Amino acid sequence: MKPAFDVEELSLDAFLGGRLQLWQPRRGYRAGVDPVLLAASVPARTGQAVLELGCGAGAAFLALGARVPGLSLVGLELQPAYADLACRNMLENGVDGQVIEGDLSAPPAEFRQLQVHHVIANPPYYRADAHSPSHDPGRRTALREETPLADWVDVAARRLVHGGHLHMIQKADRLPDMLSAIDARLGAVEVLPLSARPSRSAELVILRARKGGKTPFRLHAPLILHEGDRHERDAEHYRPAIRAVLRDGAALPWPESGRPAHR
Amino acid sequence: MKPAFDVEELSLDAFLGGRLQLWQPRRGYRAGVDPVLLAASVPARTGQAVLELGCGAGAAFLALGARVPGLSLVGLELQPAYADLACRNMLENGVDGQVIEGDLSAPPAEFRQLQVHHVIANPPYYRADAHSPSHDPGRRTALREETPLADWVDVAARRLVHGGHLHMIQKADRLPDMLSAIDARLGAVEVLPLSARPSRSAELVILRARKGGKTPFRLHAPLILHEGDRHERDAEHYRPAIRAVLRDGAALPWPESGRPAHR
Repeated sequence: MKPAFDVEELSLDAFLGGRLQLWQPRRGYRAGVDPVLLAASVPARTGQAVLELGCGAGAAFLALGARVPGLSLVGLELQPAYADLACRNMLENGVDGQVIEGDLSAPPAEFRQLQVHHVIANPPYYRADAHSPSHDPGRRTALREETPLADWVDVAARRLVHGGHLHMIQKADRLPDMLSAIDARLGAVEVLPLSARPSRSAELVILRARKGGKTPFRLHAPLILHEGDRHERDAEHYRPAIRAVLRDGAALPWPESGRPAHR
Repeated sequence: MKPAFDVEELSLDAFLGGRLQLWQPRRGYRAGVDPVLLAASVPARTGQAVLELGCGAGAAFLALGARVPGLSLVGLELQPAYADLACRNMLENGVDGQVIEGDLSAPPAEFRQLQVHHVIANPPYYRADAHSPSHDPGRRTALREETPLADWVDVAARRLVHGGHLHMIQKADRLPDMLSAIDARLGAVEVLPLSARPSRSAELVILRARKGGKTPFRLHAPLILHEGDRHERDAEHYRPAIRAVLRDGAALPWPESGRPAHR
């Protein structure tokens, strides 16, 4: 695909109640709530280094940068036109950081020097063997997995400091693939299911793992996204904690970690 | 360990509100609610064949036999004294069936002929490398995994007819091990987390897989076991649907299968 978008191919979209304004392609991969939820789930602190694998136009790491000041942010993006947008979005939103253009299965030399406290990723949702999810080449690359999840995890494990965290958001039906991608360098795995309604099966999962972590796997209670028991046709009513994440840039209420399950 | 228990080593315990009376060792592995919940989760129909791997004194397959009349029940048990108890419990509860004594990693010839519609298992909860959970040798064998979960799944896949179901109950922290044990012969995997309270992480999970199944993995909403938001010191108050399973031998309200997650 071409190296950059023309201006008429772009729209400027508001995130976090307008605190972030992101240029995104009108056709192509457009960030929804998923990267914002991912960013909200990361307990990064001022001064820490954060790497996003496959940052697209930058929605996740910019949402994180908007919430936590003074982070050192790096994004890796395969598609030049999206890497270009991520740079522009960083600049225009007054967030410091760096975007590296490259393939995570053959990352550039500058990337291989990095050591970070947090790696975040919103990997493609569909396996390479699934039906092609889109005719748009940029959107297809963003959605369809050409690089196995185990490679994403491998790169994350290499770039994390000891005790550093990986956070990934994925469709819930990929949970077995995510768990089998976690290798022995990472542990203390926790899964937070995200469900539309209390009685629904999970739509998304956020997986957290710690480099060198040893505590047992935990499956948390699902985080419910919407108010009410049924889908309201006219509007999506997010629950207050989720509205606070999406509109006000709040942190995601992740359950207390490390406490053994009550029996 | 010895081939049979002496009578003074045994207690006669009521399950399903007294519909089942099971002899169990006073010291050793004693069935709790887990095998009863497992049995309740299996949609077996009259006339079908059911195999339990590691049946112990028989709580799970007898609970299933008490709920669904006219099943063909077979249990495989490694420990002779427990196999002996399972036989006795079958006989005294008027349930027809067969108990085969043997090791699932080297099953006897008669076992290798079986083809069943359902395999159920409540495998040991602790990995072989974990601290020894008990000084009692029978309890230790029942609780500590000497045979990898992948071997349990392999045996299940061999014994199931095409379209037949495996149901396993395990501690929630073993979910990654369970999922990685599922091989390509099984699919349509669904996980039902069991949690004490709505906000708690899952304690147990029931995994269902279908031989030849192709539908995507599903993570269901957790089934909440107890009433109220907090632990009541004086008594465990089970929710009505769980009380109906444990006291009245009802089926477990498993969420509707195969319906795609709402988005």
